[in-house]
Amino acid sequence: MESRSPKHSSNPLKVGVYDCEIHLKFRLIEEQGVLGDREHLLETLLDAFACGADEYLEQVEVQVEAQEVSEVEASPQMRRQLIRLRNSDLF
Amino acid sequence: MESRSPKHSSNPLKVGVYDCEIHLKFRLIEEQGVLGDREHLLETLLDAFACGADEYLEQVEVQVEAQEVSEVEASPQMRRQLIRLRNSDLF
Repeated sequence: MESRSPKHSSNPLKVGVYDCEIHLKFRLIEEQGVLGDREHLLETLLDAFACGADEYLEQVEVQVEAQEVSEVEASPQMRRQLIRLRNSDLF
Repeated sequence: MESRSPKHSSNPLKVGVYDCEIHLKFRLIEEQGVLGDREHLLETLLDAFACGADEYLEQVEVQVEAQEVSEVEASPQMRRQLIRLRNSDLF
């Protein structure tokens, strides 16, 4: 699975599949009701976190990991995209 | 701790302190080396996630929670900010 195309045989692959995990805990001052919108809660919190820590937001825990994994763990759609990328001139 | 100012005595507080937790797991196609920059890994992954799921990104797990907590759990800086907000005309 390390190479789908002969042209890469002497060239290291430039794209890979990564398992990524982000775990954030923070304390936030917010208007009551704003966080009651479950549909947009993730977007609202990510936007707040992106603004950084200040008088409105205290970071409690931040964990982030990215680990390259075998392509066989990716979906067929993602593997097809890998093939497209490796056979294009983009990479 | 429910009210710091008499003017709010007959008016429900409009701001609160929330414990927020975001747990994201996803699989990502990325150029090798890009995720090796630990200093910017979180920013890079959050930007990728914000683009949404497509041929490059598969969501594996998304957990988000926001729970209002007592202000006494917040830092002095955050409590002072609450006082400023409640005594301003913003809320």
